[in-house]
Amino acid sequence: MNQIILLMYCADQKGIIAAVTNFIHHNQGNITYIDQYVDRPNAAFFMRVECDLNSESFKIEDFKTNFSSEIGERYTMHCDFYLKNHKPKMAVFVSKYDHCLYDILAKQQSGELAAEIPFILSNHADLKIIADRFEIPFHHISVTKENKEEAEEKQAKLLKAHGVDFIVLARYMQIVSSKLIDQYKHKIINIHHSFLPAFPGAKPYHSAFDRGVKIIGATSHYVTEELDAGPIIEQDTTRVTHLNSIADFIEKGRDLERIVLVRALKQHVNRKVMVYGNKTVVFS
Amino acid sequence: MNQIILLMYCADQKGIIAAVTNFIHHNQGNITYIDQYVDRPNAAFFMRVECDLNSESFKIEDFKTNFSSEIGERYTMHCDFYLKNHKPKMAVFVSKYDHCLYDILAKQQSGELAAEIPFILSNHADLKIIADRFEIPFHHISVTKENKEEAEEKQAKLLKAHGVDFIVLARYMQIVSSKLIDQYKHKIINIHHSFLPAFPGAKPYHSAFDRGVKIIGATSHYVTEELDAGPIIEQDTTRVTHLNSIADFIEKGRDLERIVLVRALKQHVNRKVMVYGNKTVVFS
Amino acid sequence: MNQIILLMYCADQKGIIAAVTNFIHHNQGNITYIDQYVDRPNAAFFMRVECDLNSESFKIEDFKTNFSSEIGERYTMHCDFYLKNHKPKMAVFVSKYDHCLYDILAKQQSGELAAEIPFILSNHADLKIIADRFEIPFHHISVTKENKEEAEEKQAKLLKAHGVDFIVLARYMQIVSSKLIDQYKHKIINIHHSFLPAFPGAKPYHSAFDRGVKIIGATSHYVTEELDAGPIIEQDTTRVTHLNSIADFIEKGRDLERIVLVRALKQHVNRKVMVYGNKTVVFS
Amino acid sequence: MNQIILLMYCADQKGIIAAVTNFIHHNQGNITYIDQYVDRPNAAFFMRVECDLNSESFKIEDFKTNFSSEIGERYTMHCDFYLKNHKPKMAVFVSKYDHCLYDILAKQQSGELAAEIPFILSNHADLKIIADRFEIPFHHISVTKENKEEAEEKQAKLLKAHGVDFIVLARYMQIVSSKLIDQYKHKIINIHHSFLPAFPGAKPYHSAFDRGVKIIGATSHYVTEELDAGPIIEQDTTRVTHLNSIADFIEKGRDLERIVLVRALKQHVNRKVMVYGNKTVVFS
Repeated sequence: MNQIILLMYCADQKGIIAAVTNFIHHNQGNITYIDQYVDRPNAAFFMRVECDLNSESFKIEDFKTNFSSEIGERYTMHCDFYLKNHKPKMAVFVSKYDHCLYDILAKQQSGELAAEIPFILSNHADLKIIADRFEIPFHHISVTKENKEEAEEKQAKLLKAHGVDFIVLARYMQIVSSKLIDQYKHKIINIHHSFLPAFPGAKPYHSAFDRGVKIIGATSHYVTEELDAGPIIEQDTTRVTHLNSIADFIEKGRDLERIVLVRALKQHVNRKVMVYGNKTVVFS
Repeated sequence: MNQIILLMYCADQKGIIAAVTNFIHHNQGNITYIDQYVDRPNAAFFMRVECDLNSESFKIEDFKTNFSSEIGERYTMHCDFYLKNHKPKMAVFVSKYDHCLYDILAKQQSGELAAEIPFILSNHADLKIIADRFEIPFHHISVTKENKEEAEEKQAKLLKAHGVDFIVLARYMQIVSSKLIDQYKHKIINIHHSFLPAFPGAKPYHSAFDRGVKIIGATSHYVTEELDAGPIIEQDTTRVTHLNSIADFIEKGRDLERIVLVRALKQHVNRKVMVYGNKTVVFS
Repeated sequence: MNQIILLMYCADQKGIIAAVTNFIHHNQGNITYIDQYVDRPNAAFFMRVECDLNSESFKIEDFKTNFSSEIGERYTMHCDFYLKNHKPKMAVFVSKYDHCLYDILAKQQSGELAAEIPFILSNHADLKIIADRFEIPFHHISVTKENKEEAEEKQAKLLKAHGVDFIVLARYMQIVSSKLIDQYKHKIINIHHSFLPAFPGAKPYHSAFDRGVKIIGATSHYVTEELDAGPIIEQDTTRVTHLNSIADFIEKGRDLERIVLVRALKQHVNRKVMVYGNKTVVFS
Repeated sequence: MNQIILLMYCADQKGIIAAVTNFIHHNQGNITYIDQYVDRPNAAFFMRVECDLNSESFKIEDFKTNFSSEIGERYTMHCDFYLKNHKPKMAVFVSKYDHCLYDILAKQQSGELAAEIPFILSNHADLKIIADRFEIPFHHISVTKENKEEAEEKQAKLLKAHGVDFIVLARYMQIVSSKLIDQYKHKIINIHHSFLPAFPGAKPYHSAFDRGVKIIGATSHYVTEELDAGPIIEQDTTRVTHLNSIADFIEKGRDLERIVLVRALKQHVNRKVMVYGNKTVVFS
């Protein structure tokens, strides 16, 4: 059976839902999930549909062509089509921290994170041992001021050679180049700590500690040119007290990072996320 | 402008969504919210739709008649229709505890809880002072073994006289009669404490304390014949530690009760809840 | 029976705990609570002790004098002494929002918030009706550019006349003067919204909405000269989604504000909070 | 430097804290942590103290002897002494589920869980691959009706041979024998799912699903003769909705299990937990 996922986006107009659901019905499809969202101030319409298409002769290319000519053009709609049982290819970028990496690999191995991992890439050699344990190819591409461009070319080649669909920065401590961001627009997922309020500067954990915050957080987002300011996929927080040292703050922060990052990855992999403006719609 | 809410329920069949959205489209309606849920093991279909119907000549009775003949009969569908700006009438039953009552009145007064409160009813006179403060009629109907039937008749008369749509038991410490439950099926909302695991018996807080639980909870549900076992609308939990006395457990439990009950009331009032079997669908 | 609470603060030294506990033991006291905290980087020692003092002839003034000469001087210790059953006097400052006020009054009335409320003060007349309902004196002192100084003098007189111990700004929308802050150092408690990350500027809810945050928060803190940057007493957060409008953000924010503010007030009233530097120790 | 942890337990009496803190002070110790708890209804006193003992000639055996004769006997006190930098030996029992195992190993490897793992023991061979990845000895001791006694003897030998301090049942799907429970009293830690309310019977997830619960939980506890009713160390809960299938319930349950179990293990390893009656004191 063919199960497909449609992510649609267009200006809000009357009759869209009726048109889409009719189209699927007339193409022998059975809708198993439908959720939509209208951003009223911007009059923008978003919809996510899952459907079963039983016909033996079903071809996704035909379905796309027909959908585009019957619906897409009429409503000037952008639509992405995915086969539900197709696992996207996820490259994992790491540096020296292993907490996020362990969680990603354990979740992927147990089947909860439905992605393939063609390789792990790092600017350091430290985590090779973990890649080996999980029998995943590991590429060490060190990055220095001098070789930055060359290193990025090597990365780009690897990504292309393996047909990578999206990238997770699992505590990868290098600024990603504009070129890579352009190439993987809204397809690079990052994780970082967050605070209420924010503490700008080089040592946010120290500032948060000095202020005696009672809550720390983590934010996972798509990478854009503006550092740490891309569309947010997922956030969460946890409590701290005066008893916690800076080291405790950092450990609790790491625990949150791995939880929040894996949640964001699942939502991305399950095609639950649509980006518009600088924000996301995350369907349930 | 007429905004209506439809809550639909039928056996899962192909083409329902298309049929419903088409119907609304052809009746000049604009869908502003659609969410559906299919219970696959039971092949049951649930849908909640909000739509704007602009025609000046719109009459909800006509809309209902047409919907029933065009959609309802074809799919053997049950559908409830509500005008969005119509506030349901909620009777508040209390005994001596005031924590839930205060929250309900404050939320109702601020407009967050879109219900009318024709009266507060109690088997004790203690909370009359609060009713007076909020200028809401208060009826004291004491209930004893001897006068139980008579008291229930008085209650029934009051409910009828004021056209009450649903009842909240805001810590009303009397068993509600089968007659009332039948009359207000899935329209009486109760709140009670909950634990992991459950502690049967007369003093659950004491049992939970003796076991040293680290979490206590509260559950809001529709009242059915089987005590405290009706369809759950909302639950939440909070942490306790060995430092907390039984009195603390009870205070924390009360805090949860008022929060969970108000959330359940909002979901009911906003027509977000559908009951089937012994469970609920609570739309987002 | 006399129950007293001691909050102690000094440079970290050997033997303090032994000295304090010995002193209490020798004065026929029974320690019912002891908790201490050492800030190692700053070598600062904090302790909170509750004890029962049974002697019929107990006088807190004698106890203080003896403690100071035997312990205070030896360790250059600052110590505050409170009678546990003495309720502090709390002035409530409000403007037009009622959500925090309702919660404070309900909690105070039920006995959960062990403070007396000599009066409610506002720069607007709107909330007088609530004060009347709870039979608490209400003072309307309007504040304009022209009369600011005069208004503050009226406030100061009222505070003095009633022997107010501390002030809660329950959504009081005026900047408090330096004079008042000096007079009530670490005794004015404020509540405001918080975000991850922070959104500077006049309309933070709008900025947070535009960024599509998934979490919003609230922070309660002591008021200092630097706006909203005083020592944090309590924080909490709640989830939002793309489905939530700006109005929903604000409503959820308000709900958090009232919960977080009441928690902070309880901790202050129960003498659980010690301030040092720009942070707090909040004992459990 | 010698850092020791003392866990004390006795009937509540006047002057205990003074006596203990004096003893440490007179033995050149510096208290770095003190927390106590009095269970008033049972008049039981509990205290946890950490202190630095600087003397070069410090010997824990001498300290214990002196403490017992000076304090222990006077107050009929039970006291456990631990060297803070001594890592306890933890045997990990598993069956086929790997989610808890992965988390335990990742946390242990990163140093957050300060225990040694002499071996992993399983009644199945499935998880040997994970043990190999982390280079930890794996013992496969299958358990059947026929060989149960023999299998337990093998287990007991292994535990003894490695000087195991405590056991974690990381989803070990066999009933542990009374003999083992006696031998490791309050030293076998288990994890299982929990619900509000509880759902007795073989398929609790199915019952919880049929009731439409909105919250599921997990409980970690010490193993006693009465199945799943031992002293609770840690609990937590997470939300579910009608959208979640039974499979989702189970996955969310597993996620909670691994988080709650690791938290309980940390508290045990850090000597934060005292058991009395059928409950725990968990110091902060």
